[in-house]
Amino acid sequence: MPQQDRAYATREAILHAAAEEFDRLGYERTSLTAVLARAGLTKGAFYFHFPSKAAVADALIERQSELWAQLRESWRTRGLDPLSTLHGMFAESADRMAADVVLRAGVRLNADREVGYPGVPSTHVMWEKLIAAYVIEAAERGDLRPGVDPEAVARTLCGAALGSRLISSATTACADFPSRIREVLGHVLPCVASAGWKLSGSQTASEPS
Amino acid sequence: MPQQDRAYATREAILHAAAEEFDRLGYERTSLTAVLARAGLTKGAFYFHFPSKAAVADALIERQSELWAQLRESWRTRGLDPLSTLHGMFAESADRMAADVVLRAGVRLNADREVGYPGVPSTHVMWEKLIAAYVIEAAERGDLRPGVDPEAVARTLCGAALGSRLISSATTACADFPSRIREVLGHVLPCVASAGWKLSGSQTASEPS
Repeated sequence: MPQQDRAYATREAILHAAAEEFDRLGYERTSLTAVLARAGLTKGAFYFHFPSKAAVADALIERQSELWAQLRESWRTRGLDPLSTLHGMFAESADRMAADVVLRAGVRLNADREVGYPGVPSTHVMWEKLIAAYVIEAAERGDLRPGVDPEAVARTLCGAALGSRLISSATTACADFPSRIREVLGHVLPCVASAGWKLSGSQTASEPS
Repeated sequence: MPQQDRAYATREAILHAAAEEFDRLGYERTSLTAVLARAGLTKGAFYFHFPSKAAVADALIERQSELWAQLRESWRTRGLDPLSTLHGMFAESADRMAADVVLRAGVRLNADREVGYPGVPSTHVMWEKLIAAYVIEAAERGDLRPGVDPEAVARTLCGAALGSRLISSATTACADFPSRIREVLGHVLPCVASAGWKLSGSQTASEPS
């Protein structure tokens, strides 16, 4: 393997091993020693790529942030109505998190950094605003029932997504997050959408009857 | 003040000061020094009442656990239908947590103990089972729409309650938790309840139109 490829592979191995530990234990309780043992690397190899545990966490947070930007763009280009777009993005996020420990760890690290550190601008507030923009657009198109507050719907969806992820993470390493998030969507969207709205897009959604 | 009363007051002052710190910072980042400074007490006074920081946390967790038992009992005796009982219990829990830092800290400590410690029997799983029992009873009475899975409803409600609490805690010290939880209930219950179900009980609920 050329040296550049080997360096890339080592960096990825570190990120993956760190993600496994962060995902299970969170930032504070993850030790660099455990990460190195998991990756089969020396401290020297580690410090060639990252100056600290915090720097690995930053890289994982950065990676999940990039992924959300890509995911939003990929759903935007499908041209679906806003509620169907939201449904698709939530469902795909959960699917990806269940399948990818690197993503899951980045999401956890990012959220842990916020929750419990008062005064830090909250990722969750940012997400609520972002989700609210879709629901407001749905309201403008007449896709919401009269009297439904779009921002309240965004708060419910964000809260439910966060709590579902945490419970799913603690009990099944997010294996049941895809089904949990679809349950949430199936319990909320039909309740707030107008009678004429229908879920569109090629997604395997479990809607209530 | 008689000595016994003074001892009680000191113990309560410790619990309250510790709750303020735990509620803001969580268990790990709370220092005994900060708790003592907040309570205006010496280490000696502290150790007369509690052997350790962990023991104070245990007392706070125990107290919230007792409160939930009382709250469930008080709603049981009202003899409302199960979905109205659930609505009332969720709403009252949020009201109490917004008003009481001792309760709020106990809930946070209890939840933090679970989330992120894999293998620990999860409070959330226990709550989901408990909530599911109400929703199953609602189904048996014909209060749910055909095809709605009671356990899925319990998962959605528990996830949404957890996530709403965390976001509310990080952004407003739970001040907006009462309105957030009522939004969740208003977005989910009408969606899963049968057409004939109506919220009953003397509760200030915000239901969707």
